[in-house]
Amino acid sequence: MTAFGFDFMAREGMARRGRVTTAHGVMDTPAFMPVGTAAAVKAMRPEEVAATGAQTILGNTYHLMLRPGAELIAELGGLHRFMAWPGPILTDSGGFQVMSLTDLRKLDERGVVFRSHIDGQKHELTPERSVEIQDLLDADITMQFDECPPADWPEHKVADSTRLSLRWAERCRTAFRERPGYGLFGIVQGGVFDALRRESARALAAMDFPGYAVGGLAVGEGQAEMFRVLEVTTPELPEHKPRYLMGVGRPEDILGAVARGIDMFDCVLPTRSGRMAQGFTSQGEVNLRNARHRRDPRPLDAACGCSTCTTHSRAYLHHLFRAKEILAPMLVTHHNVHYYQHLMRGIRAAIQDGGFAAFAEEVTARRAEGDIAAL
Amino acid sequence: MTAFGFDFMAREGMARRGRVTTAHGVMDTPAFMPVGTAAAVKAMRPEEVAATGAQTILGNTYHLMLRPGAELIAELGGLHRFMAWPGPILTDSGGFQVMSLTDLRKLDERGVVFRSHIDGQKHELTPERSVEIQDLLDADITMQFDECPPADWPEHKVADSTRLSLRWAERCRTAFRERPGYGLFGIVQGGVFDALRRESARALAAMDFPGYAVGGLAVGEGQAEMFRVLEVTTPELPEHKPRYLMGVGRPEDILGAVARGIDMFDCVLPTRSGRMAQGFTSQGEVNLRNARHRRDPRPLDAACGCSTCTTHSRAYLHHLFRAKEILAPMLVTHHNVHYYQHLMRGIRAAIQDGGFAAFAEEVTARRAEGDIAAL
Repeated sequence: MTAFGFDFMAREGMARRGRVTTAHGVMDTPAFMPVGTAAAVKAMRPEEVAATGAQTILGNTYHLMLRPGAELIAELGGLHRFMAWPGPILTDSGGFQVMSLTDLRKLDERGVVFRSHIDGQKHELTPERSVEIQDLLDADITMQFDECPPADWPEHKVADSTRLSLRWAERCRTAFRERPGYGLFGIVQGGVFDALRRESARALAAMDFPGYAVGGLAVGEGQAEMFRVLEVTTPELPEHKPRYLMGVGRPEDILGAVARGIDMFDCVLPTRSGRMAQGFTSQGEVNLRNARHRRDPRPLDAACGCSTCTTHSRAYLHHLFRAKEILAPMLVTHHNVHYYQHLMRGIRAAIQDGGFAAFAEEVTARRAEGDIAAL
Repeated sequence: MTAFGFDFMAREGMARRGRVTTAHGVMDTPAFMPVGTAAAVKAMRPEEVAATGAQTILGNTYHLMLRPGAELIAELGGLHRFMAWPGPILTDSGGFQVMSLTDLRKLDERGVVFRSHIDGQKHELTPERSVEIQDLLDADITMQFDECPPADWPEHKVADSTRLSLRWAERCRTAFRERPGYGLFGIVQGGVFDALRRESARALAAMDFPGYAVGGLAVGEGQAEMFRVLEVTTPELPEHKPRYLMGVGRPEDILGAVARGIDMFDCVLPTRSGRMAQGFTSQGEVNLRNARHRRDPRPLDAACGCSTCTTHSRAYLHHLFRAKEILAPMLVTHHNVHYYQHLMRGIRAAIQDGGFAAFAEEVTARRAEGDIAAL
């Protein structure tokens, strides 16, 4: 039986090169985890996701509990078998998505009662039920149930919310069924308030979780604020545990967060952008719907080795989006997920070699150049 | 330089096992050609299409001339390069699709004037322009421009239409640019009227085309009528040229048409059905949206070796359709195209072994059994 763990391989400043071990395999960090909301990374087959180098994917408790249901997935052998993803899976707690159903919820000390966006049926999510659902899904990494306060809340409201999340963290710790290779992460909250972030991080560290997340960021506070919050937060977290920045982000956000001690990331950006015709490239983002690509025989990114870039032209991708072909989101999502994994491979190699600062600068400068000139 | 040609390898009754040679490779017959309407087989990457065993795909002149435009595709190196399909491509003439725009067209001896369904712009399609477009697309097999009369037309109207198509066949013959490995097919029309079918087939045979299609079927006349028309038509066509039944069909239609001397097929059924949650199986069609599949851990078709059936459960496919995941049409389209290619491999092997009649009976009987019992 594999123990859940985190090993260091190298560091450069605050940046860490490590490896998380789980019941379903390892994840090299810094890692980007593609989002597989409803038991699928949108527009990608699981073997394709793996081929990009992604080792862990993320599932959403909120979506899966409503459809097809956690008990059904358990009956069918767990989420790994259900979606044919043999590697590690991290699930969120459902909290973030339930909280965004402003009209549909009632939150108190016990948990949240809400109505499904699918059929209006009433459901309850508590720390205990969230942990139970993630156990039924067979998540390698379970996230504590927490409240994610909006960016515009005043300090006293964020303070109450942060302390509620801490009490919920304790309840999740108690409810979590220990199994070798499975781990529960606590989530640091506290908004943009340094004292609250420190209080949250210290209290969670004292509970000794197998890993820690930083939540409540990338909700509109801006990159500078986010980096500042990370600078006060990560020093409070135990060195030898993985740190996960939830829902982040753009390549530049990831580079900056790695420099501030973050090991794990997830974001819908590469997959959602792929469906919206936006391709991530070494020279910044490219909107493939733009008429400038109509006759362009060049690949989306000449520096990219993915099957989309080595096979297809911008002209073809542009045509597929105009013709509303399903192949369009398929090809660009594949490229974007590959791009993110390629970036993470570069980050890991650079930290290993002690060249991360230079790497981050080079990637950022190149991306700031903007797209190649039209033909 | 490869000459366009057709070789016989075996026959059993009217059924033929052969091979068409084109500038971009061979096609073993009887063959089913997946439809790639707008320069993409919907929801499939080209390498995936090839992996199912498909050797030739079909492109639609009507769609491609409007978007992205034949001249643009030529400028980008032709349709093979544009859509990254290195194998043979057959294009239709645009006639069938233009004729279905009843409100948008004006047809006379010269050709058809119509308005684009995309932007309302006026276009003209004549035998000469249709052949020119197919040449610009670099189609290995060019189809003559013809009129496809509706199933409910009286004999005198079908007769006029059939003779117009014959005059257009002559004009296409003249307009076609001969190149090694490229061929032009004449299309037999004549509705359900035996005398007209014979007249059309004989007149086209006298023009000596590299191949012949039977058009104007599968437009509502029913399978029995279609088979009867084939029985009067194929004996009039030259033995040593390939015969293509356009737009057909269901597996049972294909088996019956092969038995009546047809070598090539195309149909949107496997791809369109894949997007509509309908899977073709050895025991008939299965609607994956049906609630009976909700908890079913079994594959769509246990007899199928495709990646969808060897990887995913009916429960998962059902879930993906309910959740409107792009992966749903991707997986079921893949299965359906694989199913059709597997059927064609079986047909070819059976003719080779002299066991086609028994094979057709067995496949048909098995499919008539209906789906496996619910769990």
